Amino acid sequence: MIDLDLIGKNSRKAFERLSQTDGAARKAATFAIAAELEACADEVLEANQKDIEAAHFTGLTPSLIDRLTLNPQRLAGMVEDLRRLAELPDPIGERFDERTLPNGLRLWRQRVPLGVLGVIYESRPNVTIDVSGLAIKTGNAAILRGGKETIQSNLALVKVIQTALQRQGLPQECIQFISDPDRAIVEQMLRLNKYIDVIIPRGSNALHNFCREHATIPVITGGIGVCHLFVDSDADLEKALPLIHNAKTQRPSVCNSLDTLLVHKSIAPKFLPQVVQYLGSAGVTFKADAQASGLLDDARVTPAGPDDFDTEWLSLMLGLKVVGDLDAAIEHIRLHSTHHSDGILTETAEHADRFIREVDSAAVYVNASTRFTDGAQFGLGAEVAVSTQRLHARGPMGLPELTTYKWVGVGDYFSRK
Amino acid sequence: MIDLDLIGKNSRKAFERLSQTDGAARKAATFAIAAELEACADEVLEANQKDIEAAHFTGLTPSLIDRLTLNPQRLAGMVEDLRRLAELPDPIGERFDERTLPNGLRLWRQRVPLGVLGVIYESRPNVTIDVSGLAIKTGNAAILRGGKETIQSNLALVKVIQTALQRQGLPQECIQFISDPDRAIVEQMLRLNKYIDVIIPRGSNALHNFCREHATIPVITGGIGVCHLFVDSDADLEKALPLIHNAKTQRPSVCNSLDTLLVHKSIAPKFLPQVVQYLGSAGVTFKADAQASGLLDDARVTPAGPDDFDTEWLSLMLGLKVVGDLDAAIEHIRLHSTHHSDGILTETAEHADRFIREVDSAAVYVNASTRFTDGAQFGLGAEVAVSTQRLHARGPMGLPELTTYKWVGVGDYFSRK
Repeated sequence: MIDLDLIGKNSRKAFERLSQTDGAARKAATFAIAAELEACADEVLEANQKDIEAAHFTGLTPSLIDRLTLNPQRLAGMVEDLRRLAELPDPIGERFDERTLPNGLRLWRQRVPLGVLGVIYESRPNVTIDVSGLAIKTGNAAILRGGKETIQSNLALVKVIQTALQRQGLPQECIQFISDPDRAIVEQMLRLNKYIDVIIPRGSNALHNFCREHATIPVITGGIGVCHLFVDSDADLEKALPLIHNAKTQRPSVCNSLDTLLVHKSIAPKFLPQVVQYLGSAGVTFKADAQASGLLDDARVTPAGPDDFDTEWLSLMLGLKVVGDLDAAIEHIRLHSTHHSDGILTETAEHADRFIREVDSAAVYVNASTRFTDGAQFGLGAEVAVSTQRLHARGPMGLPELTTYKWVGVGDYFSRK
Repeated sequence: MIDLDLIGKNSRKAFERLSQTDGAARKAATFAIAAELEACADEVLEANQKDIEAAHFTGLTPSLIDRLTLNPQRLAGMVEDLRRLAELPDPIGERFDERTLPNGLRLWRQRVPLGVLGVIYESRPNVTIDVSGLAIKTGNAAILRGGKETIQSNLALVKVIQTALQRQGLPQECIQFISDPDRAIVEQMLRLNKYIDVIIPRGSNALHNFCREHATIPVITGGIGVCHLFVDSDADLEKALPLIHNAKTQRPSVCNSLDTLLVHKSIAPKFLPQVVQYLGSAGVTFKADAQASGLLDDARVTPAGPDDFDTEWLSLMLGLKVVGDLDAAIEHIRLHSTHHSDGILTETAEHADRFIREVDSAAVYVNASTRFTDGAQFGLGAEVAVSTQRLHARGPMGLPELTTYKWVGVGDYFSRK
């Protein structure tokens, strides 16, 4: 039985040490993890091979096995990402909102790390490296809990990280990994508010709900994207087709891929068959509402069931719906969006403005693919998660979103009036 | 039995409406609440009188009765605060971090309200007005749950607020109040994550723990301040005395008042008796550690017990402790601070820098009173709470801290590469 309280205590202590390092030390540590990962590629791949064999043995689906599979190319990508991350500007220590109050008190906010992150995730082993790199770079400690399907890979990766930290003279407890597969451990971890500052789940809706349900620590939820594009009556349809194709097919298994296409009724008869033709040839199949179905006679189109417009497809499926106008489109999004990424394709500035103002999602687009919602795309360097809740950090959580601030006031023996 | 689900649903609906108003409408609504409160002063005072009578009947302490008491002066102060709040610049809609990505996508963050606030508080009826004013001004809806000791006052105040909202053509459900005294309602409210975005408790440590324990919604905890000042060996003692007096006595019942004075051992023999003399004459009594006790021979000084340095006094009591050096002071603060407000009095720039860097509190001071930690003092206009957790909003939560943002991306039918 692991001693979670001790893990928490050690994490806090490691954080206190890490939070006192300067940007150069954290940059060097991030580079060191990259170098160690490069040097230990064989060990990591060997460990991963064991996970793959176990996955075959337990009969995981090919797509799940693909998610947990590492290979030299994927490892090289992880190393490269770490090096790019290491080079990013250091957010810690930045002073902002500096001011001198009428009484002469000099006051500013100074950026500090969030603290100890509790990250709970499933299958993909690259999360172990991504999250650890982001944490170290921004001065945060992390307690990681990965899925049991990738336990061997994760143990190998955590060893890489801890070796690199130690070489840099940093406590290896900056990154700790819980390998005990007992789910009760997760429940305990969610109640470790004495040591953990924020819980970041990465995985299914069920995992997010479990965390919300059991945590005594604030949970950053997100990563579930039922994403919409609305094609307005005056959209440039020729340009719209490749954009929709991009949003749906570029990487269907991720949260920012398109789930539902809403089409203005005046262009639906012409445009919907084009959509089915254009995306169908890329292997996309469709769930259409009654009105859209009536306009389409194609084996790839089946009628949408009651839950289909609330489904994050994560596959080459696309929902199709005809709407009467912008209001109806916004109302559909209000009822069915998970507030991740939604967009409008229009030539009418007033419609674009209304869509931006009224659609309450972490990312709102005009004439752009929902696929852009991503920390690296947004210039945040990387991301630890995409938050879809309405806390202070919303959308892709990159480096700045892994920080908070302290207020600093400097005076000349000032008392309050 | 109240229908909490309906309250939540109505709150969400009211929020959607309120979030679409412009700054002028929210400013006018805030002014309207002030005007209505002024006009209904008699009714409010009458209702408050009933609470006061009930409090006498149930035998509440004089200080608790004082906390729940309204009078014409206090009401006038609340009206004035609302009018000042109404005049503050509107944070909503502000664009920041604007940029054009290499692919040409124009991207920015746009400030939006947090959503529906769940505020759970005790005795003081002015919280009803403060929170409602802040919420409306920033476009947030709120569900309020006040203490049973102020139920009549709160009902009268909520009537004032809702009348003003209706006059301004806004849904009265922007501000809803739960009057059912059943504590089970609070538990239900804490699980209303479908409608409430954030829980803000204002009250005792026990209330905060209860919220953390039962909430499926992120809880902003704070407001508990075990606050420290460390008097360094070279501090200007003549200037230090009135500052310490200010920190301890100006308003001992609030969270930013001083709880523990740490004194460098080299000045303790001279300075501690001065402190006891200077603050003792203002009615302060002292709990001293062994070393400090040895330096003091005064009836107002008693030995500190094991929990005294973890106690938020909220009274004219002050802990005294002698420390060997800056390290020992920082270590004491690390172990005993609630991370609210802590300060150093020193003439050594290097000590000031280390204190700022190493003390992990929401507000850190050099040569200034801990009493400054306050939304109005910090120029944030007002505050809904003081957060001492390490989420993204830390310290006084004023107008900007009641907002989040959405990402907006505008392109020319852009696809992701």
